[in-house]
Amino acid sequence: MNPSIRHKARLERHTSTQFDAELEDIRERVLSMGGLVESQIADAARALIDGDGVLGERVSRQDYRVNAAEVDIDELCTRIIAKRQPQAGDLRLVLAVAKTITDLERIGDEAEKIGRFASQVASRERPTSTFRQIEALASHVRQMMRDALDAFARLDSQMALSVSQADIEVDREYESTVRECMTFMMEDPRTITPMLDVLWSVKALERIGDHSTNIGEYVVYLVGGRNVRHTSFEAIEQVVASISSAAQDAGD
Amino acid sequence: MNPSIRHKARLERHTSTQFDAELEDIRERVLSMGGLVESQIADAARALIDGDGVLGERVSRQDYRVNAAEVDIDELCTRIIAKRQPQAGDLRLVLAVAKTITDLERIGDEAEKIGRFASQVASRERPTSTFRQIEALASHVRQMMRDALDAFARLDSQMALSVSQADIEVDREYESTVRECMTFMMEDPRTITPMLDVLWSVKALERIGDHSTNIGEYVVYLVGGRNVRHTSFEAIEQVVASISSAAQDAGD
Repeated sequence: MNPSIRHKARLERHTSTQFDAELEDIRERVLSMGGLVESQIADAARALIDGDGVLGERVSRQDYRVNAAEVDIDELCTRIIAKRQPQAGDLRLVLAVAKTITDLERIGDEAEKIGRFASQVASRERPTSTFRQIEALASHVRQMMRDALDAFARLDSQMALSVSQADIEVDREYESTVRECMTFMMEDPRTITPMLDVLWSVKALERIGDHSTNIGEYVVYLVGGRNVRHTSFEAIEQVVASISSAAQDAGD
Repeated sequence: MNPSIRHKARLERHTSTQFDAELEDIRERVLSMGGLVESQIADAARALIDGDGVLGERVSRQDYRVNAAEVDIDELCTRIIAKRQPQAGDLRLVLAVAKTITDLERIGDEAEKIGRFASQVASRERPTSTFRQIEALASHVRQMMRDALDAFARLDSQMALSVSQADIEVDREYESTVRECMTFMMEDPRTITPMLDVLWSVKALERIGDHSTNIGEYVVYLVGGRNVRHTSFEAIEQVVASISSAAQDAGD
């Protein structure tokens, strides 16, 4: 090998290692932003269920940290595209990150809202059965978000699929919780005002499920190169099955 | 000029003209998607206010067209980045398009929901004053979305600023409409079920205002290179003022 080619090869390897490190850095930032958002959801739900107004206030005041993370990572994505001109899989990864952080930020917004509503209804009497339902719903959407981020971290399309599956169940729980709240309002119209704040919070939880589903869909796109947004659960299932069987063929 | 340099210059000009045509194509597709979304909002609001269940149904069935437009334009954005490796302003434009169509698609989702709720409450008795308020709110958020897209089409940061300004007013109208609905529910608890569908629709209108504000913020970023998301109206105002004065200095 002549010296200049060797130099070039070393340079390219060096550049590619740096690039890999940059991609890894972005990936870690997304996961750390996800951790932040997850603790916001957990605190917001806790505040709502326990009637802890102080905690609710704190959640709604801390949303700026999630927002700042989004702006930073978004800036990094733009810089990496401009500087590295990534192709194929790498480009898809950076673009999927840009979308994922938008959904994470919106999940943060929903947690902020729940925190705000929680502080408004903190001192009110609370119907036990409804709040048990809300607790279950909150725990399920948190799990969805965690699974969506795990799927993203491991590029695991099967796990991403399980998020879409869970959303079907969460939508059912949401409908049933809304019906409970309505029954309560009809039985005692004086509760309409506080119960509406509860209803908005329940709605916010349901939206967190939707955003987590979006993140799962970006993962399927990232792994399989197929955009599965706006398709049915069955269609996503087929794409994931074809990814798995292609991976198996490659392994044979 | 030697022939090979001339050839290269011609080639570059040719490539750049093709690239410009591709950017123009994307821009036009965004505006046409915007037109589609706008007519979805208009029809959904009409269905809700006139109690036209058939129209509401049609709106909710037609959301797939908005979704398809999003997937197509998103695919084009990815291809253009991979093929053209755009820099600076061009890259910012393509990334802003990718974000704008996500918000347009979510506006389409909100219109779909309003359509669905409209068909559920179509045959119910409707409180006139509340529905007049809803009509005004719907017309204001439609105007916001139109202005956001106009700002995008003309890269007009002043107009983008006016969208953020309008959102403050829309949030006020939203709060007042919610209060009206609640009064109605308290006066006659039998209306709780249908009024909740009305409330969800009002909430959807408010979110359309939020998404339009997002689009306006992408335009400010595009023109001024400064990310103004998650900042106050006053902060956005300052950025826009500095863009205007820079433009004026350049013109002097």
